[in-house]
Amino acid sequence: MALEGYPSLATERDWQTVEDGTVRFALVGLGWWTQEFVVPALESASLASATVAVSSSREKADRLSSEVSSIETALTYEEFQEGEALDAYDAVYVCTPNATHLEYVIAAADHGKDVLCEKPMEATVERAERMTERCKGDDVTLMIAYRMHTEPVVRLARTVIERGLIGTPVLVRGQNAQPLLEMIDDPDQWRLDPELSGYGTSVMDLGIYPLNTARYLLDADPIAVDAMMRSPDEAFEAVPDEHAAFSIEFDDGTYAACTASQNAYDTTSLEIVGTEGKLTLDPAFHMETTLGVTHEGGEFEHTVDADQMEEEFEYFSNQLLADEPVHADGEHGLLDMRAIEAIHEAAERGTRVELE
Amino acid sequence: MALEGYPSLATERDWQTVEDGTVRFALVGLGWWTQEFVVPALESASLASATVAVSSSREKADRLSSEVSSIETALTYEEFQEGEALDAYDAVYVCTPNATHLEYVIAAADHGKDVLCEKPMEATVERAERMTERCKGDDVTLMIAYRMHTEPVVRLARTVIERGLIGTPVLVRGQNAQPLLEMIDDPDQWRLDPELSGYGTSVMDLGIYPLNTARYLLDADPIAVDAMMRSPDEAFEAVPDEHAAFSIEFDDGTYAACTASQNAYDTTSLEIVGTEGKLTLDPAFHMETTLGVTHEGGEFEHTVDADQMEEEFEYFSNQLLADEPVHADGEHGLLDMRAIEAIHEAAERGTRVELE
Repeated sequence: MALEGYPSLATERDWQTVEDGTVRFALVGLGWWTQEFVVPALESASLASATVAVSSSREKADRLSSEVSSIETALTYEEFQEGEALDAYDAVYVCTPNATHLEYVIAAADHGKDVLCEKPMEATVERAERMTERCKGDDVTLMIAYRMHTEPVVRLARTVIERGLIGTPVLVRGQNAQPLLEMIDDPDQWRLDPELSGYGTSVMDLGIYPLNTARYLLDADPIAVDAMMRSPDEAFEAVPDEHAAFSIEFDDGTYAACTASQNAYDTTSLEIVGTEGKLTLDPAFHMETTLGVTHEGGEFEHTVDADQMEEEFEYFSNQLLADEPVHADGEHGLLDMRAIEAIHEAAERGTRVELE
Repeated sequence: MALEGYPSLATERDWQTVEDGTVRFALVGLGWWTQEFVVPALESASLASATVAVSSSREKADRLSSEVSSIETALTYEEFQEGEALDAYDAVYVCTPNATHLEYVIAAADHGKDVLCEKPMEATVERAERMTERCKGDDVTLMIAYRMHTEPVVRLARTVIERGLIGTPVLVRGQNAQPLLEMIDDPDQWRLDPELSGYGTSVMDLGIYPLNTARYLLDADPIAVDAMMRSPDEAFEAVPDEHAAFSIEFDDGTYAACTASQNAYDTTSLEIVGTEGKLTLDPAFHMETTLGVTHEGGEFEHTVDADQMEEEFEYFSNQLLADEPVHADGEHGLLDMRAIEAIHEAAERGTRVELE
């Protein structure tokens, strides 16, 4: 295929097999992300719809219900866990602080509901294992919400690599940084509280993007890591990684050199350098993604005007309606949790940590 | 200063204090780099000129002498070391395999000649120390040839950081990769022979660029490193680092995540992310450099059509003619040698290595 033909590959949902049907979602956790990105995505989605709002406070759930026409039921977390309004939804989207994912996924599974759970899947490896174990035992589908996997130009990037356009991948560089406290002006937010966030903040919340997107693009898994991290500013003193640099060795021999920061200028990118060319996602991760490909035969740049959360909900719903397996499943998310734990251990011990 | 005023800062040589005079150079080592980049640079330089060619073979030296009008003397290495034609040159440029720099710098110093020595300054820390020691003891100026320090937009980048345009720097990402065997089609070349290259090939030859350019831009020094390296291809089996990923902690708290490869697509870049903006050199290191600056107030991109080797020779000559000190001196180069040794040690031991 000539280089100029590649962008056209990103225009269709190559995974779509279902045209009819709707999966009705209970949205568990109504914070910034759900309100700003998930609700609009579901309003324009065709296979997915939000019908239930679940929050810590009935007020907050009621408010969203009154604002969004498709949402007819407002529940507290307790009511959700107790199994109220089970007829009002088919599946559950969990977007609460990391350390609370498990209890809501368990409740959903107890109610026989499939789950789309935000990443990182939990606060610790042990809790992520319990989640995976729980959903394995039931006839419940668990998908971890890696929206890069259904981003059209990220999928195109994977095709570019698979077809050998950049030769053999050898090096990866990834970066994900944002000014967290300018975005969410609350020093007591859960992302800075290790009881709720888990191992830390920058790697859990941001570094997971280059880690996981590299896994997806290379079709490879991490086998060893090293890392440095520090939290010089007082607002970040409860977590070890206001800023972090970490390297990952993948099982295909590729190395990734990554940076992540919750207290820096907003910038995201991922680059894969091969023996014959290179591929760049820049910007990469914050709801807009541009792919650039360069090799000796030429270059192209491509962006698709897609809503990343809509694509993700459509994909998940398609798989549920078609009764097909999902990617990324719990085992996939669990490996990221092990890698993130290893990154924190490597930084603390000052040694390379091998993943078992 | 308004953002649009910044590019104009890169148009003048802010270091230039001398308009008249010429420093006559003996070029020691007539390989690819000297012939392709150094000779043309000196042909158009105004304060520097090549007058002596020194090579392993008289034939090679004679050939260059016949091709370049300013070069009137051709010497073998032995003749140079024995002090022939001392009246024909004022200073020496050393561009031989790393492990041979020391002997030619010592010879130059013995002859009372100032030296511009290519980087990395030698093959090992111990030999670099001997070089520094030798030149400290005499009234001889030693400069290590970091051409990024006199690249107009790299100097502009340093001004941008000093003036706080990107806030406080927090993260650095650097990359330097090239397909060595496509560039120099000889499996027996010195860059792949640890007897001549030193600790390895990719970090010594390429990784030194992001390391040193970050030092220059941040005005900071490395204090700890971690690293991964491997040589999967047979042509690279004598060196440990066909591909490498390494992180550097600087004494200002900044982290740099870097990659280097002698067997990958040609790509170079350096990015510094601060709390208020970011700065990118892309391409960065292979004789063309473009600066990009982005912050909330806007962005600009700038390139200066300068010959990087000419700028470097002009600067060094200016300092000699003005009897002013040079940067980078031997101590500066020596710290890179310690950092590179530490990077190799970190990769081999699988631990972070602190620089003493």
